[in-house]
Amino acid sequence: MDKINIKILAKELNLSTSTISRAFNGSSDINKDTKERILSIAREHSFLPNHYASNLRDKKTKTLAVIVPEIANDFFAQAINGIEEVARKHGFYILLYRTDDIFEKEVSFVNYLNNGKADGIIMSVSGEGNDHQYLNNLRQKNIPVVFFDRVYEDIEAATVTTNDYDSSFAATEHLLKSGCRKIAYLVVNKSISIGKTRMQGYVDALAKHKVPFNDELVIDCSNDEKVNTKILTKVLQEIKPDGIFSSVERLAFATYHVCNTLGVSIPNQLKVISFSSLNIAPLLSPALSTITQPAFEMGVKAATLFFEALENKDTNFPKRQHVLKSKLFIRKSAE
Amino acid sequence: MDKINIKILAKELNLSTSTISRAFNGSSDINKDTKERILSIAREHSFLPNHYASNLRDKKTKTLAVIVPEIANDFFAQAINGIEEVARKHGFYILLYRTDDIFEKEVSFVNYLNNGKADGIIMSVSGEGNDHQYLNNLRQKNIPVVFFDRVYEDIEAATVTTNDYDSSFAATEHLLKSGCRKIAYLVVNKSISIGKTRMQGYVDALAKHKVPFNDELVIDCSNDEKVNTKILTKVLQEIKPDGIFSSVERLAFATYHVCNTLGVSIPNQLKVISFSSLNIAPLLSPALSTITQPAFEMGVKAATLFFEALENKDTNFPKRQHVLKSKLFIRKSAE
Repeated sequence: MDKINIKILAKELNLSTSTISRAFNGSSDINKDTKERILSIAREHSFLPNHYASNLRDKKTKTLAVIVPEIANDFFAQAINGIEEVARKHGFYILLYRTDDIFEKEVSFVNYLNNGKADGIIMSVSGEGNDHQYLNNLRQKNIPVVFFDRVYEDIEAATVTTNDYDSSFAATEHLLKSGCRKIAYLVVNKSISIGKTRMQGYVDALAKHKVPFNDELVIDCSNDEKVNTKILTKVLQEIKPDGIFSSVERLAFATYHVCNTLGVSIPNQLKVISFSSLNIAPLLSPALSTITQPAFEMGVKAATLFFEALENKDTNFPKRQHVLKSKLFIRKSAE
Repeated sequence: MDKINIKILAKELNLSTSTISRAFNGSSDINKDTKERILSIAREHSFLPNHYASNLRDKKTKTLAVIVPEIANDFFAQAINGIEEVARKHGFYILLYRTDDIFEKEVSFVNYLNNGKADGIIMSVSGEGNDHQYLNNLRQKNIPVVFFDRVYEDIEAATVTTNDYDSSFAATEHLLKSGCRKIAYLVVNKSISIGKTRMQGYVDALAKHKVPFNDELVIDCSNDEKVNTKILTKVLQEIKPDGIFSSVERLAFATYHVCNTLGVSIPNQLKVISFSSLNIAPLLSPALSTITQPAFEMGVKAATLFFEALENKDTNFPKRQHVLKSKLFIRKSAE
């Protein structure tokens, strides 16, 4: 089996040649185990189908850069796992970079990547309202860029997001139907697109239920835990909301801590729902109601889009816009 | 300020030349902000002190490889943050690889790195009881290796670990003093060094308190959640322990889930203590008692050792063996 090609591979594995192709072009339309079987045998014979090989021949790095605001965060950790799983099947490795939500760090890293350090970038952005020209430079070098969760609307790139508006609307509506009339919306950096989208769902749900929107209830928090504790303590003591809708997981945790300190009972005095990918949300006291994004699947989809672009299989890239569905889990914290 | 050197830099910043040097050799004996100020100004003038520059001149990648068993895990996520923070100050980036505790994946990645993909490796190992020759190949190429948390005792490399034996002894002793006489020890892959060390603390604490060791109470779990649920359900129903000492965070979560399903009350019927870096452990129901490792600091220390080696500042590398202290937090789950 020295002179191996797709036909021989198909014959040996007793599969169709199109199945073999699908295994290489990162298509999701193929059984996971079958795909892994094909790729591992191909690796054994260091075989790459022509379109793939020819495309990789001029690639230097076999490295995929992943840029995220934080790593110690269940959503991003799971998304990275998804990206990494697909990358691995293509023999690629992950160059990981954390921006801490600081735009300058994102720019400096992307510019560093311009020197051929990676074959592509999958990123969750940090700097809306800035000039994103540095990303267009990558396009000229045919370095595919995929945004996930947080996107720049002014940059043409493939995107993988979730139905944030619907989720926020549903969560807010649940709180309203449970009797909440003073729902605080917690956000970090209002200007980020998902912050805005999630807030719109909140605003529209209020309108539907004829509850006047109150700007004082939109709490713009920080990335600093201590600062958030101060802010939320002030909110709970002075504004006294009866519901919290948090667009960021750790703001829900901060709320729990502050409630414990102040002796505010969840859900009796305050109902809480938060965007969160925390697997142990049901183990919290009380169990946290969550809008859970399919983080791992988002990573898989983003990486799949990248490899389709890399292999020139997808002429429509970077116009791909994938929207996956989140799930709303109502638990004790919002009953 | 074109012809810049340490003296000029020191003068401009009104600092001693030794302070400037410390900023470059990754020493911890310098104020964080001062260090950042020095390095950023140095970067502005793309200045590197000679010992550093000369050492980097022949470095190709400015990339530091980080190998961990899992990413979606608070301990490793925080450790990666610590490594990344130090790497960033040296203008280095992180090439991240997840082994899923599969030895073959570790070997294939390390061999990939042999082709000059990284200037060094910081890793938490996955394959004890195997041949680790592939790591010695790196030494010949002067690629520094630092182990953290999980180490190979047969490989000479710098290590950053915690006082696992003392922590396990203290945790087990607490359970014994609280009246537990049938304490199950939960572990994944007994053969891993930390698994053995942690178990020794457990065994010796039992001996000290004249409680006979029972091999049936050493529960070797898996990396598969469903399998662990089955195992733990069987343990709680048939062996009926009155205490659980978990050497791995997610096994404690699995225990909580199974207890909820079976209606076993923590801490009344079962007291639980686990190794865990989960920030929200106090928010669990009941609050989880933890042995908390200084994950972030371990990452910082490991990266600092790496840069000291890279800059030939540390002739004793790779003989460095750093042991940091964990903290035992007794919360509701073990009261």
